[in-house]
Order: sequence, then C-alpha cells, then structure tokens
Amino acid sequence: MSEGRKRQARVLKGFRDYLPEQMILRQRIIGIARDIFERHGFEPLDTPALEYLEVLTGKAGENEQLMYHFEDAGGREVGLRYDLTVPLARVVAMHQNELVFPFKRYHIAPVWRADNPQRGRFREFWQCDADIAGSASPLADAEVIAIMAEVLEAVGLPEFTIRISHRRLLESLGRAAGIADDRSPLLYRAIDKIDKIGPEGVARELQAAGVTAQQANRMLDLVTKRGEPLSLLEELRGELHDVPGAAEAIAELEQLFGALPDFGIAPHRYTLDLALARGLDYYTGPVFEASVIEPNVGSVGGAGRYDGLVGAFLGRPVPATGMSLGLERIIEIVREHGLMPLPASVAEVSLVVFPETMGAAARLASTLREQGLKVDLSLQPNRDVGDQLKLADRKGIPIAVILGSSELAAGTATLKNLKSGDQSVVALNDLAEAIHNALRGGATTTQASMTRMEPQTMGAQ
Amino acid sequence: MSEGRKRQARVLKGFRDYLPEQMILRQRIIGIARDIFERHGFEPLDTPALEYLEVLTGKAGENEQLMYHFEDAGGREVGLRYDLTVPLARVVAMHQNELVFPFKRYHIAPVWRADNPQRGRFREFWQCDADIAGSASPLADAEVIAIMAEVLEAVGLPEFTIRISHRRLLESLGRAAGIADDRSPLLYRAIDKIDKIGPEGVARELQAAGVTAQQANRMLDLVTKRGEPLSLLEELRGELHDVPGAAEAIAELEQLFGALPDFGIAPHRYTLDLALARGLDYYTGPVFEASVIEPNVGSVGGAGRYDGLVGAFLGRPVPATGMSLGLERIIEIVREHGLMPLPASVAEVSLVVFPETMGAAARLASTLREQGLKVDLSLQPNRDVGDQLKLADRKGIPIAVILGSSELAAGTATLKNLKSGDQSVVALNDLAEAIHNALRGGATTTQASMTRMEPQTMGAQ
Repeated sequence: MSEGRKRQARVLKGFRDYLPEQMILRQRIIGIARDIFERHGFEPLDTPALEYLEVLTGKAGENEQLMYHFEDAGGREVGLRYDLTVPLARVVAMHQNELVFPFKRYHIAPVWRADNPQRGRFREFWQCDADIAGSASPLADAEVIAIMAEVLEAVGLPEFTIRISHRRLLESLGRAAGIADDRSPLLYRAIDKIDKIGPEGVARELQAAGVTAQQANRMLDLVTKRGEPLSLLEELRGELHDVPGAAEAIAELEQLFGALPDFGIAPHRYTLDLALARGLDYYTGPVFEASVIEPNVGSVGGAGRYDGLVGAFLGRPVPATGMSLGLERIIEIVREHGLMPLPASVAEVSLVVFPETMGAAARLASTLREQGLKVDLSLQPNRDVGDQLKLADRKGIPIAVILGSSELAAGTATLKNLKSGDQSVVALNDLAEAIHNALRGGATTTQASMTRMEPQTMGAQ
Repeated sequence: MSEGRKRQARVLKGFRDYLPEQMILRQRIIGIARDIFERHGFEPLDTPALEYLEVLTGKAGENEQLMYHFEDAGGREVGLRYDLTVPLARVVAMHQNELVFPFKRYHIAPVWRADNPQRGRFREFWQCDADIAGSASPLADAEVIAIMAEVLEAVGLPEFTIRISHRRLLESLGRAAGIADDRSPLLYRAIDKIDKIGPEGVARELQAAGVTAQQANRMLDLVTKRGEPLSLLEELRGELHDVPGAAEAIAELEQLFGALPDFGIAPHRYTLDLALARGLDYYTGPVFEASVIEPNVGSVGGAGRYDGLVGAFLGRPVPATGMSLGLERIIEIVREHGLMPLPASVAEVSLVVFPETMGAAARLASTLREQGLKVDLSLQPNRDVGDQLKLADRKGIPIAVILGSSELAAGTATLKNLKSGDQSVVALNDLAEAIHNALRGGATTTQASMTRMEPQTMGAQ
C-alpha cells in the first residue's frame, strides 16, 4: 500500500508538535488552571476555531491584523479565531437567554496569529482565559486577579507581581497634564513602553506626537508616583479633585484594592502601577498584568475590564472583565527552570512478556489497571527481556514487571526499579501494592523478596 | 467604547458553541477516554491544526476531498487537518529518533471537514484516537480493540458489538469468487453497504461494475458466513486452502481472536463479520467497527491496521494500527438517553452575600475551596437574598450558603439545599463537611441545626 513517492514530512513555521513529554507537562499545567477556575465556579466554554470574518473584525486592533482568513468553498469569508474574548462576546450576545449573569466562564483552547515567529512566539498557541460578563463591580475584577495569582502560585512560579492600573484614571492623569482626550490611545501606547524605553523615551515619543515637553513631564511625574495602593489613591484623590472622571476611577480602584486581601492575595503579590496601560484599545476600567521577577521573564498574563466589547454584538453595553494567562510562556518557564519535575511517560509500569506468558500478562495488566496503575503491556513476547527492559527505560517508565513462566507457576512476578536497578520477587496478590509503594519512592523489596536475582534465571526464554 | 454599529452574532453552518452544560458532559466523557488510554500506557500527543497542504494530500480519499484549504499570507498552500491519523504518520516520520517503538499514543482534538451538515454531522468535530505505530503483531490490534470496548463500557453504552474482519482475507474471498485483485476497492465499497442496501443491492452494484452474477453470488455467500470466530476461521482455512494470501490473513485473525479474551473483552462484545470492509483505502489488515445495538444508532467507532500510511513519509513501511472513537455520536447518545446524569454547573455551592459580610464571605469562599469545594461567590451584595438564590438555582448549583451579619457574629451560616428547599444553620467550622454531606445526598440538617428558618430573619439586609 506504500505510495512509492515519499512525501516530505514537515510542519509550518510557528507551529509545533507536542510530543508526549511536552504534553504531560502541558496537560498538568492546564489541569491546575482548570481546577482553580472550577473551584471558583467558573464554567467551561468552547467555541469554533473558524468564525465569520465579520464576527472577528472591528475590535482587537493589532491582533486582528494577524488573523488567518480565507474564503471557504461556499464563498463565505471566514477566519481562525485570534483570541478567546471576541468569541465570548459573540456567545453572550447569541445565548443571552440561556446564560445566567454574571456569567463566569473559562476557555482553554488554541488561537492562531500569523505573527512573525520568534523565541517564545508562535502562530498557533493556547490561551487560558477566565472572564466574568455581566458584572460592573470591582469585586469581579478582584476575583479574576485572585484567580490569576492562585494559578501562578500553584504552578510554582517563585516570584511574581501583579501590577494594577485603571484606564479611566490614566485618562484623567492625561487631562491633569493638559493632554487632550483624543490623544489617549497615543498616550497609552507611549506610557506602556516605559519599561523598555525609559521615561525619557516616553517623553520623546509624546513630544514627537505634538505633546509639549511640560505636558509630557507632568504626565511622567504622575504615572511614576509610587506608594502603598490605598495611600497613593488618597493622594491622587486630592491632586485630581477637579479632573473629570478621576473620582469615579479612584473609587473603583479603592474598592478593588480593598477587596484583594479578602480574596486571599498576599500584599506583596500586587501593586498600583499607574504606568501600566496595556496595549489593546478595548479596555475601559481596571487593567492588570502579572510579571515574573525571578527569573526575569516579563509578562505571564493579564487583561482587564472591557465594558464595550461584549455589547458590540448586542447594541447595548455589557460590563465584562477577565484575565488571560500566558500559558505558553508559563509552560516554558516551568520547563526551563524544572519547577515541576514530571515523568517522561504516562506509564508507571512496563509489563515484560514471554511467548508462554503473553495471555497471563495481558490478564495481569488488566488487573493492575483496575487497581489504579498505568500499565504499558509489552507487545513483543519474542524480544529478549533485556531489550524489553531497555525500551521501557528509554520511554521513561520507572518500574518493570517481568512475568516468566516459572514465576507465573509460583504465583509471583519480578518487580524491577528501572532507575535504581533494584529488583525483587513479589506475590501476584501483593504486586499492585508493591508497585504503588515503589512509585512513592519506597524500596521494591518486600518481605517475600529475593533481591538482585537476574531475570535470566527466571525460566521461560 | 461601543461601536455604534451592531455586529451580527452568528456561527458558521456545521460549527457549534459548547455551552457550560454541554462542556461538562464533553469533558467528563473525554476524561473517561483519556483515563483509559493512559491506563494502557498510551502517551498524549498533539499536532498543529494547520499543516502544509502537501502533507495532508494523497492518502485519505473522501475525507481529503472535504478539506478546508487556502493560501496563507506567506504564499504557502495550507489545510486544516481532517483527521488525526495523517498527522500521526507525519510525526512518526519527523521524530522517529526521539520516539520509542512500538509508539502508543492517543490524540483527542478537533478536526475539520467541509461536509454537508446534517443531523449528527458537523464541519468541526472532535476525534478521539488511540494508535500503535511500529508493531505488526495482532496483539497490537487486540489492545486497541480492548481499549475501544473499555471506553464504550465506561461511558455506559448499554449494548454494543465490535465487528471484526480483515482486509486481506476479504481480498482472498474476492479471489476465491474469481474477482480480479484490481477490483478490490470497488468490492470493499459495495460490500460495506450490505447493511444499507442488502445482499441483492450489493449484487446489483457488483454486476453493474462488470462482476458476473455467479462471482457476485459466490462472494456474497462467503462474506455472509456466520459462526463462532475461531470455528469460522477454521472452516475458511479449508475452503480457501489454495487461495494466495488467505492462510496468512486467517492466521492473523486467529491470533487476534485468541488474544481478545486475555485482553478482558467479554465474548458477546465482538464478532467475526466478513462483510465489514470499512471505507478508507489505506487499511491493510484487521479492520473493526463498534456499533451500538440498543438504542440502534449504528457506528460509534472503529478503524484497523494501516501499514502503508506511516511509511508514506518515511519511504519504508511502518506497521500501525489504531482506533477512532465517534466522540460526537457517543456524547449525543449519552446525552439523549440520560446515561450519565450530570449537574448543569461545575459549582457545587453558591455563596450568597450581603454588603456587611462581603469580605468575610470572600474569605469563607477561599476556605471552602481549600477544603475541595467548588464555590461560586455571588458578586452582588446589593441584590436581595431571594434574587441571589434564584440565580444560583437557575445556574443549576445544588447548594447555597447564606452568610448574614448576625450569623457571622455567631460563627455560623445558613446552608440551603436548592433542590429540596431544606435549610439549616451550621457552625462555620462544620460547614465544609455539612456541604460535602449534602452533595452526597445527605440531609442539610446537622445536630446543631435549626431547620426551616427563613433567611429574612438573619440580620443584615
């Protein structure tokens, strides 16, 4: 059935295969996130990879430019989703009568962007989002920030901080500096670069766009103010008392910072950073971003309140807030820094077989599986024991069970720890317990054991 | 931030949103399959949704015709994967030095086919595959059949059968009937329709393609033979003793049927059905298909051995076998027949709040979560208790906890079963246990309880 012609096996640039060892880590981290989302009562949601182009167009700025889109065979203009927020907005609009609000949902799924591939940037990558639609309360912002902190703690990131700011407060600071409201998008984009280009860089960028030096400096003075969040907000309340919009934004932030401790976030995990703007245009309230400080790898997640987006499909505003974890970056940090040592194989036991014991081995494998073990049954009774053991070890399976015919006759099997080389003979009735014990790091040796017996002595070959 | 212009919210024909209640069932069934795959030591794998068109072209016949494909912004011809088998073949070719063979992998992921949408057929649907690459042994076929049976049992399908046949045996039967080998594809396709169009229909179709009436009838006599698998194979061994290829195929099936009981499959779960051909051209050995008999919904999974496909990328044959579960159909059967009653919400408890107790409620929610509970914290302290309870009930959350300020002062909370209406006052220290008990179906009432107390009497409103 071979084709004769050999086809070239390759993957597109910016796309990746996840081999078993990588998948085991990915699934573990995704499982941790999912568990935390569900503990907060967030419901799972999934949406199509392909959407009408029209649905994906009009809100997400730069990300939208990177969309994969084409005309399908039926002449419809379609696109691959580039985030999970626009699909959420569409779902809320289409299913508003089936959903109960506030609607708390999570969505863990791949998205696609035809970005220029570079280290840590891919054209297919997974997003991991938790959002609340239908609540304008800063308590909703506090809850999604809390969830973000819990996930980052749970995956073992040693040192991270969540910086928090507020779009409308930033707008007010602009007003206080004498910068016109229609310059806000420019202002956000310039301020957002402060970590990269420094205050002088931001000042130059603002002046190049027609902001005066005095305005730029005043703005920089304001956004670089530091302090304990509630004191700093108190100070700003005085300073901005006559700036339209400032009081409301400050009150929202006060409520948010007041709630964070009750939501279980340690004070050293968050800060008020007025220079945080975030790129996307659609934010309307609190914005937040988590960064890992040690190792210094930058942003690992963030988001904020976007009260306009969901309403774009409904024709009326629907308040919404949420957060998106930088799943790919988190996985990379955990892997690179060995924060979560995991086995290379899902299998816990390899069952080595002989022609004479193949049937009994298959039955034994079923029994061990019923006792909660993950058993890789060797399907190669005609290969010698050494080869079968070598393959199990190469796969990364920690334990082997060897079932020879004379042992089988005696109701026993040999248990071998493939890391230490220790082995012992165990009664079949005690086998599952002995394996569980060995997996917990205990010795493979049991009372009835005869250690260091070579498999070659065990009959049937 | 609203756009002014309202965008139309709709999904493409053949695509679906999975709302929380559907996702809870999907995730449960996918979790069951994954758990069984891992118990058999099958490793997780994932591959890109988009592949080079060239990679996806040339092997999978009809499915390939339905591919979504387009030219990307870089001028590359690309396509969305339409199955998980072709990507496996590519992975094996590209990563042959990193993988250990036999390579047992599972892959649960969406695929896309621009098929004509109809009841139960979608353009985006999930596949759930388990395959073994690098083993020519019928033991490998037996293991994937066993896995299929275990998953179908575990999701609670009441009555199903796995029909098993062999492509090369079918070919031999064709030879025995005097039909030329180059007619094999035609033969498979005609025979495969026997359930739909009956033996007469198959005979007509064969004759229309130039097979004589005598040949067609002889073929139909052969493929409709029934019997206990090993006896029937013995009978065929005699009948086909001078037909090239027959003896080898029969020997493989004998080994397969001989192994199935050891792999834990009950005899009533499988049968030798020589009229099973399966549509795809790439099968080269045993083929199998699981059908649900009661309710009579037809195929819920299948596959077989395909020794040529993986090698198409390598230029040398790599034996491979596997199975694909009809996940969408299984989910639909389970849902429609109520085989797996599940809650409509992941949240187990709704925590009802008051302005005065908001902070304490957030802290209580954290404590309950640490004790393993899934807690939806109401973010609406200013709505009245009745409204908050109504929302929790509409979401499908079974239990509510009401934390009023006088109760809080007394170190208690009210526990309310939203199904039965029963309620009781419980000490905060005993709350997690009382909720766990109520979730297990026990009464919400505890020793310290005062039942039927109205929430209105509990202070703070």
